[in-house]
Amino acid sequence: MHHPVPPDSRGMDEPLNLVLFSGTDDKLTAAAVLAAGAAALGRPVNVFLQYWALDAFRADRIEQDHGLAPEAGEAGRAAVDRLREAGQSSWAETLRQAKQLGGVDIQACSLSMDLLRLETSDLDPLVDGVEGVTAFHLAAGDGQVVFI
Amino acid sequence: MHHPVPPDSRGMDEPLNLVLFSGTDDKLTAAAVLAAGAAALGRPVNVFLQYWALDAFRADRIEQDHGLAPEAGEAGRAAVDRLREAGQSSWAETLRQAKQLGGVDIQACSLSMDLLRLETSDLDPLVDGVEGVTAFHLAAGDGQVVFI
Amino acid sequence: MHHPVPPDSRGMDEPLNLVLFSGTDDKLTAAAVLAAGAAALGRPVNVFLQYWALDAFRADRIEQDHGLAPEAGEAGRAAVDRLREAGQSSWAETLRQAKQLGGVDIQACSLSMDLLRLETSDLDPLVDGVEGVTAFHLAAGDGQVVFI
Repeated sequence: MHHPVPPDSRGMDEPLNLVLFSGTDDKLTAAAVLAAGAAALGRPVNVFLQYWALDAFRADRIEQDHGLAPEAGEAGRAAVDRLREAGQSSWAETLRQAKQLGGVDIQACSLSMDLLRLETSDLDPLVDGVEGVTAFHLAAGDGQVVFI
Repeated sequence: MHHPVPPDSRGMDEPLNLVLFSGTDDKLTAAAVLAAGAAALGRPVNVFLQYWALDAFRADRIEQDHGLAPEAGEAGRAAVDRLREAGQSSWAETLRQAKQLGGVDIQACSLSMDLLRLETSDLDPLVDGVEGVTAFHLAAGDGQVVFI
Repeated sequence: MHHPVPPDSRGMDEPLNLVLFSGTDDKLTAAAVLAAGAAALGRPVNVFLQYWALDAFRADRIEQDHGLAPEAGEAGRAAVDRLREAGQSSWAETLRQAKQLGGVDIQACSLSMDLLRLETSDLDPLVDGVEGVTAFHLAAGDGQVVFI
């Protein structure tokens, strides 16, 4: 999946900025794949965790089943389970691997920390810190912002 | 939460463009916080209201309870209620404050107006007008587009 | 709906990049409208199909009812049905028309093809091919990325 970076690749210096809102395993997997793909291309990736996505990064829950979007239905559930049993990495593992490539920064939204009454010590070590929305916008610059 | 704008902040001249589709209070709050943060940094913000988000901006419903994403569950519901009772602004109030900073323009999608059989007079005064998707794209320019 | 392109329109050379994740008819219609609007302005559009959106592009299901977001409720369901009966194009038809304008490329995510155990021959001819996330990022360049 990792092609060499072509010399004319545009936009690859700007960070990819992911605002994660949903905490279901299908959306978190989609987000982790986008992050890992960008990191493999050498792009900085900023992840900002809000609401139910932040809840999924709690140290005591990150490896649990977080459900799927309602539209997945029984067939979707079976498909996800089958791929997982075949050895697919969890989204948390994909993010851990992406962080090892460097350039992936994961921040919890301070307002969502208040909402869920969380302390930094409640979060998985994947999370690098807590910041407000202004800091997120400044880090994003004019890079792509993707809400998931 | 409002840091001074650093002189080298990139991308801050381009508008932030939010396409609001979902009408639940959690997503609308996340959107309002992103809009308010960008407005506080002096960035133009364009909001384009579609489908269930547009429905939530009806004058007679904007202050009502619009529910949460299904994944919120009972614990999420309780967390949102607790923060609201502690005095957190509603998303509508956050958007009103952001508009007072200037630079926030909120437009209803003309196709969704037809879908929901709405007239301009049905909408809360937060909404500045009605436009088509072409006008949205032209206003967005090459600024970030975020679908929520 | 198609305004002439003003000479100072910014960002119109960069592609619009849509990651489609959800497979409900309301979100797919919103996505098709964004794609068609950009194509009408002469912008390249890259569509990347994942998860339940990819499932909706199966040749044997594309014209079926794919449901709506849970928040639509009965009133939303009735509104969508009424507009459809009044002759509104389906999202698939809107995408076909957008492709005729040129510049719209639709790719299936290779990981989601594995997840759903699909072959290229299972997909509607609207889909131009299968690619990985790296190819998606490279095609997107620094154009807007929208996750729907």
